[in-house]
Amino acid sequence: MIYLDNASTTHKKPRCVIKAVKRGLGSLSVNSGRGAYKLAIKASDEVYNTRVRISKFLNNDDPSNIIFTGSCTQAINMALRGSVKPNGHIITTTFEHNSVLRTLNYLKQKYNISYTIIKPKSTIITKEEIESCIKKETYLIVINHTSNVIGATQDLEMIGKICRSKKLHFFVDGAQSVGHTKIDMKKCNINMLSIAGHKGTFGPQGIGVLALNNIQIKPLIMGGTGTYSESISQPLDPPEAFESGTQSIANILGLNAGFAFLERKNNKISIKIKKLSQYLYDNLISIDKVKVYSGKENNGVVSFNIQGMSSSEVSNMLSEKYNICTRSGLHCAPLVHEYFGTKKTGMVRVSLSYFNSYRDITMFLKAIRQIVTT
Amino acid sequence: MIYLDNASTTHKKPRCVIKAVKRGLGSLSVNSGRGAYKLAIKASDEVYNTRVRISKFLNNDDPSNIIFTGSCTQAINMALRGSVKPNGHIITTTFEHNSVLRTLNYLKQKYNISYTIIKPKSTIITKEEIESCIKKETYLIVINHTSNVIGATQDLEMIGKICRSKKLHFFVDGAQSVGHTKIDMKKCNINMLSIAGHKGTFGPQGIGVLALNNIQIKPLIMGGTGTYSESISQPLDPPEAFESGTQSIANILGLNAGFAFLERKNNKISIKIKKLSQYLYDNLISIDKVKVYSGKENNGVVSFNIQGMSSSEVSNMLSEKYNICTRSGLHCAPLVHEYFGTKKTGMVRVSLSYFNSYRDITMFLKAIRQIVTT
Repeated sequence: MIYLDNASTTHKKPRCVIKAVKRGLGSLSVNSGRGAYKLAIKASDEVYNTRVRISKFLNNDDPSNIIFTGSCTQAINMALRGSVKPNGHIITTTFEHNSVLRTLNYLKQKYNISYTIIKPKSTIITKEEIESCIKKETYLIVINHTSNVIGATQDLEMIGKICRSKKLHFFVDGAQSVGHTKIDMKKCNINMLSIAGHKGTFGPQGIGVLALNNIQIKPLIMGGTGTYSESISQPLDPPEAFESGTQSIANILGLNAGFAFLERKNNKISIKIKKLSQYLYDNLISIDKVKVYSGKENNGVVSFNIQGMSSSEVSNMLSEKYNICTRSGLHCAPLVHEYFGTKKTGMVRVSLSYFNSYRDITMFLKAIRQIVTT
Repeated sequence: MIYLDNASTTHKKPRCVIKAVKRGLGSLSVNSGRGAYKLAIKASDEVYNTRVRISKFLNNDDPSNIIFTGSCTQAINMALRGSVKPNGHIITTTFEHNSVLRTLNYLKQKYNISYTIIKPKSTIITKEEIESCIKKETYLIVINHTSNVIGATQDLEMIGKICRSKKLHFFVDGAQSVGHTKIDMKKCNINMLSIAGHKGTFGPQGIGVLALNNIQIKPLIMGGTGTYSESISQPLDPPEAFESGTQSIANILGLNAGFAFLERKNNKISIKIKKLSQYLYDNLISIDKVKVYSGKENNGVVSFNIQGMSSSEVSNMLSEKYNICTRSGLHCAPLVHEYFGTKKTGMVRVSLSYFNSYRDITMFLKAIRQIVTT
């Protein structure tokens, strides 16, 4: 099997991740931050150490601002809903995932916010395109760092500068980029960053992160926090107030191991992804009848269609005939398809991880050439 | 180490659970309900089979009504917030966990609901106590099936009958009971049931369930659902609309294995818990200076204090001197402590699982006798 659906979930995990999850499940299935016995304290320490590691990785001063969630989607809901300003205005882009779009739509109905969706000329949004959308009521810019459909990666430093000068909050959906592209929260003036633990950071499914920086937001989920237990009002202090319920120690340890793996590999991952995706891109665009929507710089996410075929036909054929895993359809990002005129056909998406090889891509290209000619 | 904090998380898991999680992580780390390749379809099938198993276990007709969440707390938020009727009235009890109390408090502020908290004469709530609270605006009864502090287990069939006759919705927080006590959703007329996967059902941490029956609620978390991807409005159909974001296949397989274990054991678990907890209770109440708050029927949750000591002192001593894990404090259920006058001291909680033995309890009792006499 050749797995090219890493933008959904990185299928192959580093050994250290598997080992950490096993250890968490087998010997640390206890509640952190609650009990006072040795094992519970050990679990709390390991959770804290994970916050420290991720905080450093993102250049975010305060480990308390690293909030563990059940998924990136949950982190996005927490960020957008926890920072909402009723009647305010948000700037976002046509590249957003439904986890952002549907939450904004909900906030519009519930809190009368309005939002402007930037449809940029090229796939990289410019300073002017953003600045022209700023209104008096604007309080937040929401940007998908790397598009989960076409891999376009936005310039966070430039956008962060705009936010700093205009006193806007800045939320970055890092679902598709963290692990492939380094993010410096302080340098880019990012107030909120959402991470999918199971993608580029190689953690297990069922863990996400919301990293905060220089912002106070309200909790989304109410419940036991192990703090202020005497009060029936939800506390407000991160991280506990944002982590109601029992944490998955196994998933947190797995994520810790994933970040440790990223640290050890340093920039080897982004270099390999770049090389592989350029090899993929250069060859794919040269195949007759193939239309590639991603650019040459695509952070390992390359979407395309074959003339006269629906994306699902292509994807199914790749699976059935060649045992190659790709994804078809809209990828939960409908406005990208309005932008490219592919709402009916969808796109076939190929997405890479560090564990892919040139051979994987050669085999894929061979399959596409065969599909095109038959 | 003797682990007696199973009401937080069952520490020891059946082998089949560990094996299932490993299999999920190692060979099924893909997105279910999204991709069309073989592995994604296999993951979707296994997720569906888990819904079927849990649905049958709870006598809930429709597998689509089994919603996977990241925790029981999340399921509770989903249930209470998804079914809220602005300006309506809710009946609940003094035994609720903060995940219910804090959510109700939030709904009061946000939707102007009101609620009546039953403080029953005995720890088992009577028909009359409930019926006397029903108002014209009442739309929901929220009951903690088994108290996480004192183990009192309420009569769901009786309460369900009241709900049926008065046309009220019925929400049961099954965090502490499912796995120890059989619940029949149809017979008890339960509309919403929340489950903590990592407690009596022996699943990993990071998975909960909200089971629906004969009720339509609104989703709490907005995001990608793999359904109606072209729309930026959150869909409403369970289960997908309630499971935005990537599911943890490993955790779902682990939970499936946990339920399979419960099926195989049938009533052996509840019988063993009953025997062990009665042995614990009978001996504990006979120790001088020990005040036990739980009743003889306690579903494996026995809380107590030692005269002249705070609960944390006792719990710490049990950990440090005897390597016995218990929990002290308020257990995230403040009103229980108002009820018993233990808001300052908290309680020491001992909570059992099927994997505990008479020896564990004998060792614990021996330790308590020593602590009392020194």
